[in-house]
Amino acid sequence: MARVSQAHLDARRRQILDGAARCFARNGFHATSMQDVLRESELSAGAVYRYFAGKEEIVAAIATEAFGVIRAAFAEAAATVPPPTPDVLLGRVLQAVFDQAPPEGDRQAFARLIVQVWTETLRNPALAAALDEGYTAMRAAWTGLVGSYRATGLMPPGPEADHVARTLIATAQGFIAQQALFGDADPAVVEDGLRALASMRTAPAPETP
Amino acid sequence: MARVSQAHLDARRRQILDGAARCFARNGFHATSMQDVLRESELSAGAVYRYFAGKEEIVAAIATEAFGVIRAAFAEAAATVPPPTPDVLLGRVLQAVFDQAPPEGDRQAFARLIVQVWTETLRNPALAAALDEGYTAMRAAWTGLVGSYRATGLMPPGPEADHVARTLIATAQGFIAQQALFGDADPAVVEDGLRALASMRTAPAPETP
Repeated sequence: MARVSQAHLDARRRQILDGAARCFARNGFHATSMQDVLRESELSAGAVYRYFAGKEEIVAAIATEAFGVIRAAFAEAAATVPPPTPDVLLGRVLQAVFDQAPPEGDRQAFARLIVQVWTETLRNPALAAALDEGYTAMRAAWTGLVGSYRATGLMPPGPEADHVARTLIATAQGFIAQQALFGDADPAVVEDGLRALASMRTAPAPETP
Repeated sequence: MARVSQAHLDARRRQILDGAARCFARNGFHATSMQDVLRESELSAGAVYRYFAGKEEIVAAIATEAFGVIRAAFAEAAATVPPPTPDVLLGRVLQAVFDQAPPEGDRQAFARLIVQVWTETLRNPALAAALDEGYTAMRAAWTGLVGSYRATGLMPPGPEADHVARTLIATAQGFIAQQALFGDADPAVVEDGLRALASMRTAPAPETP
């Protein structure tokens, strides 16, 4: 077999993942066959199976790639000193994710993929573990950032930092769901919403026992 | 055929929906057959098909029921005068939804159902229309509430009320996803998170052109 360059291997892999992502976005994981992926990526079975043993492995690769994009976007946005407020940061992360996500910056297809990955993790332990790892890392990163907000006096002491982290992650997750389901999720919407919430007169402490 | 009371019909319907919800939560929509639903609900095919033509109709009924629970919980919480702050309100709605949702108050199963419904709507126009209707109503309700917050001086004028509404709905959606995916979503977490965000020093306006 002729030697091939890493660049060639990467390009083929990309071709398969983009083709598969388009199929999944259009028809869903379950209704997509490996035949569909071959047709869409315009590659032979031999070429595709050299990279992936089956549909499950392709799904896992796409999910891992999506988590990578999300983490990189967050790390880049959070590295700014002083860190931007949550509204600005979350807006930047969502924008970066929508811009860079496979397939080819199609945010609707990407968001639909994410929602499908969520469903898929309910019955796929390997995918669930990958998602859990990404979530745990993101939670730690946001928790650290809440520490910075408090150290700089931007956020007064109060509820557990982890709870703030989970709330912000939930907002991002829910917004990706809105993009998937209703298709018009401009990150500026979340940025506006979080800014308005931050501007509220501080709520009285809830009545807890 | 003997006449049967409405209570009997309702109980049978409930039995089918709960059985199906347990199957879907355990194995997903696609891996669940009508045979599974019959077995789980301990009813004959004749009894089940009298209520639902097939799996799709059962899914639609479960989704509609879930939207009903969410709307009722929101309406009840929002009817308080003056309306509770977003952290308290969202916490109450999530708590009510998790407590009352089928099957039988199992919040993990319910959250997994919701995530599956999202995926299902991507290829099921009738389900997508039902989801869209629920979302639109919820958006209008939250938008009205933002108006009340502003009228009472709790939230200063600023970003579009609809953007605030969508952000809060996203937070709830994402939190349901966290419950489905990671299983430990106590509504108090979101309540804490939103309270901490509301307590932040008002962010400077973002640099926009």
